[in-house]
Amino acid sequence: MQAVRPRQARAARDFSASQSRLPDAVHARILEDIGPVRAAGSVLTLPFTGARFRTIRAAAEEHLRTLLDISDDFAVLFLQGGASAQFGLVPMNLAPPGAVADYVETGYWSRKAMDAAVGAVRVATAASSAQGGFDHVPPPADWRLTPGAAYVHVTDNETGDGVEHPDAPPTLPVPLVSDMTSNFLTRRVRLTAHGVIYAGAQKNLGVAGLTVVLVRRDLLGRAHAFTPAPFDYTQQDAACSMVNTPPTFAIYVAGLVFEWLLGQGGLPAMETAARSRSEALYAAIDGSEGFYRCRVQRAYRSRVSVCFDLADASLTPLFLLAAREEGLDGLAGHSRIGGLRAGLYNAVSQEDVAVLAEFMGDFRRRFQ
Amino acid sequence: MQAVRPRQARAARDFSASQSRLPDAVHARILEDIGPVRAAGSVLTLPFTGARFRTIRAAAEEHLRTLLDISDDFAVLFLQGGASAQFGLVPMNLAPPGAVADYVETGYWSRKAMDAAVGAVRVATAASSAQGGFDHVPPPADWRLTPGAAYVHVTDNETGDGVEHPDAPPTLPVPLVSDMTSNFLTRRVRLTAHGVIYAGAQKNLGVAGLTVVLVRRDLLGRAHAFTPAPFDYTQQDAACSMVNTPPTFAIYVAGLVFEWLLGQGGLPAMETAARSRSEALYAAIDGSEGFYRCRVQRAYRSRVSVCFDLADASLTPLFLLAAREEGLDGLAGHSRIGGLRAGLYNAVSQEDVAVLAEFMGDFRRRFQ
Repeated sequence: MQAVRPRQARAARDFSASQSRLPDAVHARILEDIGPVRAAGSVLTLPFTGARFRTIRAAAEEHLRTLLDISDDFAVLFLQGGASAQFGLVPMNLAPPGAVADYVETGYWSRKAMDAAVGAVRVATAASSAQGGFDHVPPPADWRLTPGAAYVHVTDNETGDGVEHPDAPPTLPVPLVSDMTSNFLTRRVRLTAHGVIYAGAQKNLGVAGLTVVLVRRDLLGRAHAFTPAPFDYTQQDAACSMVNTPPTFAIYVAGLVFEWLLGQGGLPAMETAARSRSEALYAAIDGSEGFYRCRVQRAYRSRVSVCFDLADASLTPLFLLAAREEGLDGLAGHSRIGGLRAGLYNAVSQEDVAVLAEFMGDFRRRFQ
Repeated sequence: MQAVRPRQARAARDFSASQSRLPDAVHARILEDIGPVRAAGSVLTLPFTGARFRTIRAAAEEHLRTLLDISDDFAVLFLQGGASAQFGLVPMNLAPPGAVADYVETGYWSRKAMDAAVGAVRVATAASSAQGGFDHVPPPADWRLTPGAAYVHVTDNETGDGVEHPDAPPTLPVPLVSDMTSNFLTRRVRLTAHGVIYAGAQKNLGVAGLTVVLVRRDLLGRAHAFTPAPFDYTQQDAACSMVNTPPTFAIYVAGLVFEWLLGQGGLPAMETAARSRSEALYAAIDGSEGFYRCRVQRAYRSRVSVCFDLADASLTPLFLLAAREEGLDGLAGHSRIGGLRAGLYNAVSQEDVAVLAEFMGDFRRRFQ
């Protein structure tokens, strides 16, 4: 095979917000299970109808149920399409025609979810922090919920704006639907507060192309007639997420990640580590005498999407270039928002953050 | 990492119809591009927003356009959800509410496509071979097309029934939509006869979780308002299939497969090889004096899904067991249809088929 493109010299520490690297142990295991050329039974191409994949899928579900303490009241689905597809599929699965759905607007991604739902459901804004420039999460006590709403949708972590819900709200009178794509499995979750949780795989579950959806079973059976079967929660639940060919390799990788997380001490350990990583970085920002700035109110600062900027924005390209030279990659802010950003997912180490904080200190001393 | 399950002894030659293995050269290249533990820039976790993935995606599209001689009149989309999702997404993208769509029923999968479209479009049967037990494809001259139909849908190859359209029909008065999941890139295609072609990746494109959709551009812009953006052909075309996070690894693998196919001589070479493989196997069946039987009329026998059975059906479990012992795997027929089946995708070699044919001869001599 000719190379599609020559291999680049690559950064050693990746803070990309769009895709996390894999834990080393998971990476090693994947190589082993792919096997050498002509290896039979490679995990790259497992027939989904075979016993081996069925075992892998069942084990992945079991590990996830253990991690999050998921009872049988919830279905665990492994779907395709990405979390953005769920923006449209949540109303198609939960809201009868003409129903109202409430949305809590906290930044770029919750806005995207609202825009995508228009047409499938009557979208109502239960609360918004747009007036504050998305520098906080409106407290649940202030949410104006519509009586009889099909659900209320939140984006648990806003990767573009660096804002995170501090905790799940108290149990609400309408089902809570939470997009946890970017902070899934980085802390414990009070599952009983939720109706639906969904998360794309590319942040904390491995390779892109898989979306995990947890659905409280009493919410099943409400899909619109025109919902394609692979996107119908009820049909996928009945078929163990094998209504059609599932993304077998992505599910296999996610299963390895779940297993790795359990071996690391599960979600309490991830919660401690995420807190520790983000606090170290916010300390570097807050201690910079205004050279670096984070405009998010402290109580709502994301533990996984640390968004900041330089008081002198003209230094941003130089910062990114200098960081890259130090092997620190993926630090540009969201393309529509700008600034700087560090994605601190589970596979990022405390040492990675320490190296970044040290670089930020050096850069500041050169240019402040 | 603990093993999810101990590695099994695996068959050396896999004829699974649901998932093809990869060509050796592609497998080797994937291992290289994944790299060792702590390798930076692994293809497992490429950020889709980065330059490297964009280059990979663009190259994959370019290779596919070269292979199939696709003009700019067609959009090339890399989507998620599987071909079964397209059963619902084709009407959502092409048919205005209340429209009629014609379907040609030739077996299990075309029936599935029809059932899934009900509710999104008024389904009309343009032709059916159900009365013949799906032993042929109704000739296009006999299709009863509905004037003004949004499209006519065909399943180019029926993996469950072993029936394949011998060729594309002449250009029709309504757009032709063809599910080529199982025979995509196994022969040349007269693209101008088609409006839409779609194909899941797991047969001839590599790893599951990717669906290639080719859409004639004059058919864009017709999606229902409630079509989720990642499944809206028009939005995905405008965004180079990056409306949201695409299945980066599956697209990378498909790109390698396209490149491999070009190096092998492209579709003329694949067509010759597929013909040669299937003829060798049908010869073994037809020359068995009725011990093995294929009930599909010769002109419509699939080149990639050779479905057959044993005159004495009670021998089927023994056949599968003995085959497995010889390293010949994946030969059970579709779970809802039964019998035997060999999936002869591009990565299956002529030698694989020769070994299978020899085994079939030996088995026959023992039990006839």
